[in-house]
Amino acid sequence: MRRRYDVRWRLTGVATRRAGWVADSDGLSPIALLNGHWPMVHPTSPVPQSVSEWLEKSRADVFFETSSLDPHSGQPAIDHIKAALNHGAHVVSANKGPVVHAYDILSSLARERDKKFLCESTVMDGVPIFAMFPSGLPATELRGFSGVLNSTTNVVFTEVEKGMSFEDAIKRAQALGIAETDPSYDLDGWDSAVKVVALTIILMGIPVKLDQVQRTGIREISAEKIRSVRAAGMRYKLVCRAARRGAGVDCTVRPELLLAGDPLANLEGTSSAIHFDLDVFGLSMVEHNPGIDATAYGLLADFIRAVRPA
Amino acid sequence: MRRRYDVRWRLTGVATRRAGWVADSDGLSPIALLNGHWPMVHPTSPVPQSVSEWLEKSRADVFFETSSLDPHSGQPAIDHIKAALNHGAHVVSANKGPVVHAYDILSSLARERDKKFLCESTVMDGVPIFAMFPSGLPATELRGFSGVLNSTTNVVFTEVEKGMSFEDAIKRAQALGIAETDPSYDLDGWDSAVKVVALTIILMGIPVKLDQVQRTGIREISAEKIRSVRAAGMRYKLVCRAARRGAGVDCTVRPELLLAGDPLANLEGTSSAIHFDLDVFGLSMVEHNPGIDATAYGLLADFIRAVRPA
Repeated sequence: MRRRYDVRWRLTGVATRRAGWVADSDGLSPIALLNGHWPMVHPTSPVPQSVSEWLEKSRADVFFETSSLDPHSGQPAIDHIKAALNHGAHVVSANKGPVVHAYDILSSLARERDKKFLCESTVMDGVPIFAMFPSGLPATELRGFSGVLNSTTNVVFTEVEKGMSFEDAIKRAQALGIAETDPSYDLDGWDSAVKVVALTIILMGIPVKLDQVQRTGIREISAEKIRSVRAAGMRYKLVCRAARRGAGVDCTVRPELLLAGDPLANLEGTSSAIHFDLDVFGLSMVEHNPGIDATAYGLLADFIRAVRPA
Repeated sequence: MRRRYDVRWRLTGVATRRAGWVADSDGLSPIALLNGHWPMVHPTSPVPQSVSEWLEKSRADVFFETSSLDPHSGQPAIDHIKAALNHGAHVVSANKGPVVHAYDILSSLARERDKKFLCESTVMDGVPIFAMFPSGLPATELRGFSGVLNSTTNVVFTEVEKGMSFEDAIKRAQALGIAETDPSYDLDGWDSAVKVVALTIILMGIPVKLDQVQRTGIREISAEKIRSVRAAGMRYKLVCRAARRGAGVDCTVRPELLLAGDPLANLEGTSSAIHFDLDVFGLSMVEHNPGIDATAYGLLADFIRAVRPA
């Protein structure tokens, strides 16, 4: 970081739901923390109530929001981010909730404070979806997009195709560390719906609400059906779609039966893909077999963009 | 352009091999020129000899280099670009020759003059390959890449698969406006080799030379062979590859037999694709069915990036 980007950093605070919080503006040792040596741990309960106190003590310049997703309210992450921006820190978020429920408010607050609010990790990890628009594709119109953006259902379909039961396939996704805290968020399409909304708000500039997404999960499809269509050269995928309709947008999440030649059909495991329907050309991006470190990479990339603007 | 980017522009000069050159710093009418009404045409021969005179008369702030490719020398485009940068104009190039033969020199000259030298259109039209690195993917290592980047051979393979002769398939690519001026540049893999070199120099920072690319064209494959493998569920594509080897790089261009499920195998017509082998994840980008206007779009996107830096 110092050699390539002339960026010097230190870790000055960590707050978790389970282990309480620590802060030291002189710097904490990441290795010691990872090994469970937390100096001066404050109790869990004051976070997020005392998130401002924690930010003050840590004197944070950049705040990473990685709490677990509440798709229905976006809380408490929204309050964390407001506190961090008001404190004067850049915010890097891997949490989709604040994007879906408060993107305009948080972006405006960030602009007022001359800070960045970045969230590349929320969709396809560190793949530069949000970093690519608009500077990479100026003067284009995004008419809509489609994608397979949920790894859990992707793994579940693949494992069921191979003969596993639904329950075991879900356990496999959880063991891979890719399932949301509550797996129903994946299986019922909430994670995908939240991603469609985040993409639509940020890339298309349309303030769509989560309850406007027509959402169908994958629970109604039997394992037998999944295996029989696979034998016939087709595959189920949980497909997200958004398409402009006048000044508004139609957003859907539903299992779709895809032909084997469809680029979205060939995704395995944690791979995901998105297709952008631009006025100049169609553009697809595929992320191949990312691990959990790919999400961490997205946070790092946003960190560099925040402190080293192009 | 004015409303979205606060950019006001006028066309102040055009120079072509066939129609001579015009320049007027007060502005020329693009419509009139497109209809063949060229005021005060100077003879063809003084370009590029008098490219400096033409730049002075046009008082160009931005210069677009779109002359045809000479893969072996990169000329006369290199001289055009040097003259434009020395004149004080940003340079936007759709010509791969200067990138392959003079990227370091031209980039250094651009930096010295505090101008941009941009070339997004040289590979996959306006798809933001060069605009995405490094800001979109900071702190990554690009280990290598593979791609199907030549439309002419793609169209030829597809049409031959459908039963057309090689000769007619080449004529079809020429009618689509996608073949290089000399179709042997496509068929013998020069266009692909030049793209591999451009990508390797710009994205991997390795100053590879064109003659270091192991290059095999598509002429040795018979139409019967192309049709028989297609019937067996496989397809030929002219595949480009680069892979780091120590401090150097191995670059190849050759026809490869791909399984139908391979993402590169499903490309039709003018579509192209590239796969980046990054240390954090694999990332593929696919451009679907671009027309000739997609190349023009790439020039426009670079123009906006040059005059409106992010």
